[in-house]
Amino acid sequence: MKKNDLETQFAALKTKVETLTKESAENKLSMIVFSGDMDKVLAALIIASGAVAMGMDVVMFFTFWGTPILRDKAKKVGGKDLMGTMFGAMLPKGACNLKLSKMNMGGMGTAMMKSLMKKKNVASVEEMLAVAGELGVQIYVCEMSMDLMGFKREEMIAYPNMEFCGVAKFLEEAKSSKIQLFI
Amino acid sequence: MKKNDLETQFAALKTKVETLTKESAENKLSMIVFSGDMDKVLAALIIASGAVAMGMDVVMFFTFWGTPILRDKAKKVGGKDLMGTMFGAMLPKGACNLKLSKMNMGGMGTAMMKSLMKKKNVASVEEMLAVAGELGVQIYVCEMSMDLMGFKREEMIAYPNMEFCGVAKFLEEAKSSKIQLFI
Amino acid sequence: MKKNDLETQFAALKTKVETLTKESAENKLSMIVFSGDMDKVLAALIIASGAVAMGMDVVMFFTFWGTPILRDKAKKVGGKDLMGTMFGAMLPKGACNLKLSKMNMGGMGTAMMKSLMKKKNVASVEEMLAVAGELGVQIYVCEMSMDLMGFKREEMIAYPNMEFCGVAKFLEEAKSSKIQLFI
Repeated sequence: MKKNDLETQFAALKTKVETLTKESAENKLSMIVFSGDMDKVLAALIIASGAVAMGMDVVMFFTFWGTPILRDKAKKVGGKDLMGTMFGAMLPKGACNLKLSKMNMGGMGTAMMKSLMKKKNVASVEEMLAVAGELGVQIYVCEMSMDLMGFKREEMIAYPNMEFCGVAKFLEEAKSSKIQLFI
Repeated sequence: MKKNDLETQFAALKTKVETLTKESAENKLSMIVFSGDMDKVLAALIIASGAVAMGMDVVMFFTFWGTPILRDKAKKVGGKDLMGTMFGAMLPKGACNLKLSKMNMGGMGTAMMKSLMKKKNVASVEEMLAVAGELGVQIYVCEMSMDLMGFKREEMIAYPNMEFCGVAKFLEEAKSSKIQLFI
Repeated sequence: MKKNDLETQFAALKTKVETLTKESAENKLSMIVFSGDMDKVLAALIIASGAVAMGMDVVMFFTFWGTPILRDKAKKVGGKDLMGTMFGAMLPKGACNLKLSKMNMGGMGTAMMKSLMKKKNVASVEEMLAVAGELGVQIYVCEMSMDLMGFKREEMIAYPNMEFCGVAKFLEEAKSSKIQLFI
């Protein structure tokens, strides 16, 4: 092979490697939090903080039943229409009012689990959310869900890295992530 | 280093890069739609059309409770055994008969959500399915679920890119996808 | 380009390719089995055995409601506190006591599905678990869930590749997997 040929081929290979590098997944975990159940949200947050502890970036996209979890129970907003008021009243207001996906038993199962978690030193959803904020976990809130359920930005918790966006934003993050989960 | 050595090493590296390229994930999203709940199926379809809009290929594998969604309510098939007839009657016939996973409240919550979606210009599951077909979203239907629930191919909707297959087909797609979700 | 320059550049590219190779996903599937529903666990196990048949490594991380599935109904352990005894009694003891996530109808739907599965030659969760063990599927059991629900290692089934660990272990596997699912 002539030296020039080798150089040309080398340049071509270099371009290929650069494409591969650009396309390769980042050390990142992306989750869709669709569920609003206490147990599932807790699992999502435990996974998130575990991933951060391993040096990964973490992105959580809260949509549908996951959205009301991010409401601040102390904040009140007016000017809602009938549907918005109804959804606002029926959905859990914030992270401390969630129920178990199973064995809720009129609240008894959930209360039991909560007392058990306290006894076993497992942090609550509310505490885990605060930890996630400190750890730099990025939260995206689905704009369509906000609109559908009549939630306003002013009633959401003060979280350090929170953005309101559409599904495209999440997909962009997920595409470049090593792990993706729908919870 | 001798020129020949360099050439040999170059060839070896080239092979490695080719393997990496072949093994690297495609710009594709693969989803298992296990759930038959209106909200979850809607989320799956919104994610699907969002991904297509970003230039991704999308594959949806409908299994278990996801299967009856693809039935055409206008089509009638005979020759079912008792179990098939019972499943056929109990499961939602098509995309417009789904219920919310939460707050269904005897149908009231679902009706409320549907009217809200109309008001907010959010497309229904039925409409989103039609859009998915136009966008080229590939649908696979789990053959085992079809068999288990006694569904026949003749009672499924006319969808442009629908295939009946097993889990292996899905795994092959998922393996080469950048994003995989179980919904 | 001088020969020395080419050699230097070649070495740099080689390092890059080595990094890419090290970082590229393995032919592996990682699943979180959070759910304890018969249908979902069955789906997880069918996916697992399908993946093994395709030559993939499979890792399942059983957490929360997925944990009691791995209990051996024949084993009895004492020395539990009140909460542990209550959880032990309320949660399904082993793989043959699971319920459908939908249409359980007081057990009737589940019984119907089980008889249908037998008729259609679909293996039960219990049988699929045994198959998974023979196929070399790795099972991790979430230590936090074990602790929370008061389960002891002595009451779990004898499974060839079972380990008790935390979420970090799962994330490490998931990070290097081509497919990840939360079920």
